[in-house]
Amino acid sequence: MTGASSRGPAAARAIVAGDRRVLARTITAVENGDPSADRILRALYPQSGRAVVVGITGPLGVGKSSLVNALVGLLRSRGESVGVIGVDPSSPFTGGSVLGDRIRLERRADDTGVFFRSMASRGAAGGVAAATREVARLMDSAGFDVVLVETVGSGQVDVAIRDIASTSIVVVVPHLGDEVQTLKAGLFEIADIFCVNKTDLPGADLAEKDLAELVTLGERSDGWAPPVVGTSTIEPTRGIRELWDDVLAHEQFLDTSGERARGERRRLSAEIVGIARDRIGQELTRRLERDPSLRRLLDEVVAHRIDPRAAAERLVRGGRRSR
Amino acid sequence: MTGASSRGPAAARAIVAGDRRVLARTITAVENGDPSADRILRALYPQSGRAVVVGITGPLGVGKSSLVNALVGLLRSRGESVGVIGVDPSSPFTGGSVLGDRIRLERRADDTGVFFRSMASRGAAGGVAAATREVARLMDSAGFDVVLVETVGSGQVDVAIRDIASTSIVVVVPHLGDEVQTLKAGLFEIADIFCVNKTDLPGADLAEKDLAELVTLGERSDGWAPPVVGTSTIEPTRGIRELWDDVLAHEQFLDTSGERARGERRRLSAEIVGIARDRIGQELTRRLERDPSLRRLLDEVVAHRIDPRAAAERLVRGGRRSR
Repeated sequence: MTGASSRGPAAARAIVAGDRRVLARTITAVENGDPSADRILRALYPQSGRAVVVGITGPLGVGKSSLVNALVGLLRSRGESVGVIGVDPSSPFTGGSVLGDRIRLERRADDTGVFFRSMASRGAAGGVAAATREVARLMDSAGFDVVLVETVGSGQVDVAIRDIASTSIVVVVPHLGDEVQTLKAGLFEIADIFCVNKTDLPGADLAEKDLAELVTLGERSDGWAPPVVGTSTIEPTRGIRELWDDVLAHEQFLDTSGERARGERRRLSAEIVGIARDRIGQELTRRLERDPSLRRLLDEVVAHRIDPRAAAERLVRGGRRSR
Repeated sequence: MTGASSRGPAAARAIVAGDRRVLARTITAVENGDPSADRILRALYPQSGRAVVVGITGPLGVGKSSLVNALVGLLRSRGESVGVIGVDPSSPFTGGSVLGDRIRLERRADDTGVFFRSMASRGAAGGVAAATREVARLMDSAGFDVVLVETVGSGQVDVAIRDIASTSIVVVVPHLGDEVQTLKAGLFEIADIFCVNKTDLPGADLAEKDLAELVTLGERSDGWAPPVVGTSTIEPTRGIRELWDDVLAHEQFLDTSGERARGERRRLSAEIVGIARDRIGQELTRRLERDPSLRRLLDEVVAHRIDPRAAAERLVRGGRRSR
């Protein structure tokens, strides 16, 4: 075996042994779509599946990062190691305050039981979700007991959180007002636990009560009734233990109900298809640029003589024949 | 030809003739991924490519919908017909204020020169972007002179706006503060025009100046220098004409520079590959569920014996052989 071909497993061993630099480098490789990550991920895959992976999502300004920070504090006080993935909103418009919170978290850098990594969500939505999933798995393989994935409630990535985390916390703040109605539609798909943060603000009790009532209106097909928990991250913090207890209760539910196995299978199937689809897409893009007959097909579309759906159909059929 | 097989062209003719009900129904079919839209889109494709398609994007709360409303007012006063597509943030957290603005727009319903349609961006990011592109094209084929596509700055969809619109306006408000730094990174990719809205607020001049300075720092490979225009949608509105003049200037630039043809080719190539990739993905999902050997492959992944990337590789190779 050459040095190059053994690099994967060696890096994998280093990651399992706790080498954070190799972990960080491998995460970068995954983010960049560097194929060198292939062998490392492959070697580590049997080691994964042990961490509790928790998604924390919600709109900007609800204090998700502070909540993550408080959860990290609680977990560290119990001796549990924690990996944190912060998925940056890809929009260039936000970031300021988020980064502030991030910096607070990163100050824990001297604690080797915490590993923080932020990821840019710019680029294809499938791309970020897929990369985040692999990074969570890397942290899992690296032996972290808990992996927290924080995403901003921007739509695509937080829906994808269900394909990454086994338990998803949706964070809101008091004074939802009219938005409660809007919340209804999408929340049940995402939330295993509702967290009303900033209970130090007035109106928090009412918000909790409203949300709890709303939750009883929906019934999930898996039989889980999402709890509503109030938290405050201002010292002395409130509700953080209860929030984590709810996470553990949901994790136990996944085991006893058989939902974990079903969810795992669904998630992995989606992941495999996603990777396969992306690879095929890359191959098709290359061929559309290089293959003369496909270039002519594109010419016809540009000339408005063949519509894009019909062209795609030909591309798929052509792929069937010649690939 | 049977009734069913001629339905596509008949609906297409109705849309071109100005039948808004058939247009609305066809948009719904596109949104739902209903294959009945195939023939209609195909029949209409040669009629498209005439409208000016403008993207309007930016964070929540900058007044995009009011700006769209003001642009519609200006364009209608000039006798131009306008189609408006509002891409809802898929996140369930927002929507309240956005809906308020929408309702104002929809009150123009008695004016047949305006057609408003909101689209949910829930679901796959590629899915929404692809559907929005096809809906914009439907409005284009229906004869609207201008199609305005409003998206919330949530990341995925507003980046995709460059694959839909020929001119993209990025809307911000005064007091960007620290965010200006964050803006830098992503804005040049998106904005053909920067709009500082709410110039009635204090600090607007400074914001315009700051942004104008920022714009001179970057240089676009296409040679276009994005203008910065200040607007206010409070009556009497300010800057709306200037904003539209900038849109027309950019559209003219696209023609004289040859960028329109290049952009069009790039957009169509991405669209064709996107459709092909989605179709292949659907087929792979089906096969992974039904094909016994692929079910076993998934079993191996669930058992952590084969990693998802390797499984995807086999799935792609299997597809090459047997499809």
